[in-house]
Amino acid sequence: MSTWRLECGACGEEATRHKATVCAHCHKPLLARYDLASLDGAALKKAWSTRRGSMWRFREIMPVESDEDPITLGEGETPLLAIQVEGDAADLELLVKDEGQNPTGSFKDRGLGAAVTRAALEGATEFVAPSAGNAGAALAAYAARAGLPARLFIPEDTPDGVARRCEHYGATITRVDGLIDECGRLSAEYAEQTGAFNLSTLKEPYRIEGKKTMMLEIVEALDWEPPDAIVYPTGGGTGLIGSWKTLEELRELGLITRSTRMYSVQGTGCAPIVRAWERGTDHAEKWEDAETEAWGLRVPGALGDFLILDALRQSGGGAVAVPDAAMREGAARLGSAGIGASIEGGATLAGAGALRRSGALKAGERVVLFNTAHLLTY
Amino acid sequence: MSTWRLECGACGEEATRHKATVCAHCHKPLLARYDLASLDGAALKKAWSTRRGSMWRFREIMPVESDEDPITLGEGETPLLAIQVEGDAADLELLVKDEGQNPTGSFKDRGLGAAVTRAALEGATEFVAPSAGNAGAALAAYAARAGLPARLFIPEDTPDGVARRCEHYGATITRVDGLIDECGRLSAEYAEQTGAFNLSTLKEPYRIEGKKTMMLEIVEALDWEPPDAIVYPTGGGTGLIGSWKTLEELRELGLITRSTRMYSVQGTGCAPIVRAWERGTDHAEKWEDAETEAWGLRVPGALGDFLILDALRQSGGGAVAVPDAAMREGAARLGSAGIGASIEGGATLAGAGALRRSGALKAGERVVLFNTAHLLTY
Repeated sequence: MSTWRLECGACGEEATRHKATVCAHCHKPLLARYDLASLDGAALKKAWSTRRGSMWRFREIMPVESDEDPITLGEGETPLLAIQVEGDAADLELLVKDEGQNPTGSFKDRGLGAAVTRAALEGATEFVAPSAGNAGAALAAYAARAGLPARLFIPEDTPDGVARRCEHYGATITRVDGLIDECGRLSAEYAEQTGAFNLSTLKEPYRIEGKKTMMLEIVEALDWEPPDAIVYPTGGGTGLIGSWKTLEELRELGLITRSTRMYSVQGTGCAPIVRAWERGTDHAEKWEDAETEAWGLRVPGALGDFLILDALRQSGGGAVAVPDAAMREGAARLGSAGIGASIEGGATLAGAGALRRSGALKAGERVVLFNTAHLLTY
Repeated sequence: MSTWRLECGACGEEATRHKATVCAHCHKPLLARYDLASLDGAALKKAWSTRRGSMWRFREIMPVESDEDPITLGEGETPLLAIQVEGDAADLELLVKDEGQNPTGSFKDRGLGAAVTRAALEGATEFVAPSAGNAGAALAAYAARAGLPARLFIPEDTPDGVARRCEHYGATITRVDGLIDECGRLSAEYAEQTGAFNLSTLKEPYRIEGKKTMMLEIVEALDWEPPDAIVYPTGGGTGLIGSWKTLEELRELGLITRSTRMYSVQGTGCAPIVRAWERGTDHAEKWEDAETEAWGLRVPGALGDFLILDALRQSGGGAVAVPDAAMREGAARLGSAGIGASIEGGATLAGAGALRRSGALKAGERVVLFNTAHLLTY
């Protein structure tokens, strides 16, 4: 069984579940809250260990009721690979969560799998979102799996390959003479005009719920001992927010006691979270003239900025910016360990090195890096 | 525990295990034979169900001894996705084994994961192989994971993306002014001159052992009821040979009773197995002027031709050729079901349609298709 309510991540106001978007009061992201006190943690742990096939094996703390079927492409169950590297991170115990092994080649499958599942169950008949990359392909694939149409607004300068991937899954593409925020505006407008459901990042509560399964898998793979730290390549930050939420839920279920420090890594050319972290503010100002090769990190203003900063602070973590050249070098190092790393994945290794240099990460600590997308998606 | 001997798939002669290649007597592929009578099938089934993380959870019937560690990138554990399509295959119960969700994006990871594991355990210090596609990337990745160098001979006209993928994993590429058979000749020569281990298809016994885990996963996912039929896109045919071998082993272990009909699908522009099947011969003549967009099916002469034809015959299956246009249409249909299908994957849907039309597949039968590589690898 699974049942939950929604509350605003900022003001705490309750929201109704039906086709939920953002807080009606303050327009901030909503979070799903499960009745964890009614669940038996030990029984869950056992049940989860016997299931196979997708992220939905954690369904008791995911947004489906017990009689509902999720829409799945077998997302999740990605490996956690131990690696050894030379350089600054050499004396860390490094593990890479290889999210490139998801259905469309990135971690976006978890978030959009959950969001599409819930929206379809709530009666959505069409989906819309802005995208310049992997989120578009993931949305297209899950919409197809749901048997529902998807429309994507993508910036004119998006590589042809990205559009072709989305079209393979049957999505309708509208190329926009503008940046991703203009695509976001058009998506919202389209949703309003047509009744299509808008799946923009954090404009609905369930992408977080899908992304949080990454951390569930990590903690389970480590025999319910959370790692010392994670280094997360932070664009919209849904996965980081989800990871922290997972740890809180597992603590409440009595399945873990210790916690994990969360570190954000961003590019030096687009580091709004790092700047806010360093200034000690609760919110991140929009980054002007964002510039980095890592598409997934080119997010000048994240709607969940305050949730990201809160997770970094509460967990005792931090944030660090690395230049594109260091990301590329990181990706090459991961490649030499056999991992099909995207530049975002490379950023986490570069970030781990920088955090080790600064002393934030200590020798011998167990640190999880996220290869959020496959090399092939570039 | 796991222990096995090697015997020739053609003449049955025993071969020594150390750095085994092909039969010393007749130069045909070797097959691994496990002491299945000493294994408890029911206990294995239970043990397999509790393990997680890679294809090596079936290790008792794979080429590692109980005290040996396999080299893994988390390959396998790919989903089996039910789909519904319109057209000729509409009244079949179709399931797609989505092999695009492997570490380097194709089923080659299973074969090369097993081959590299065994060769590294036997003391190989360098690997070499010819490739024009996914096998190269898989070998490069597993060699990297083993910490050993890999050299690939690839045809001059291979797309740049393929070479870049292999280089990401640190492989050394030699571009050859010639076709894949010339690359094969150069690989053999290089192996002889340097002592590098040659991992060409079926030039060693263990790629089959990796590939066979696809069928193990399928049968397990279907609660130990083998499907009525599989439609397999046949290039070198290692996966088809491995699938049949798996069924034989599971029968011997008492885990299954019924069997599965095996069907090969090839392109009309390169269909040596289909031609041999139709002529009723034991071996397939080399196909001249092979031409198909599906790289994975552009194999004019397979070393394991006699094993493929034997599996088709023994299983009561068959072979069918489909044109490239039908493969492309098949891939698009799979895309509309949310699957990131390569053209080879599309070929299996096209093949299922053709086999249904001919009456070889019957209404209501449960048929497994193989999406052997991700759309992204193209």
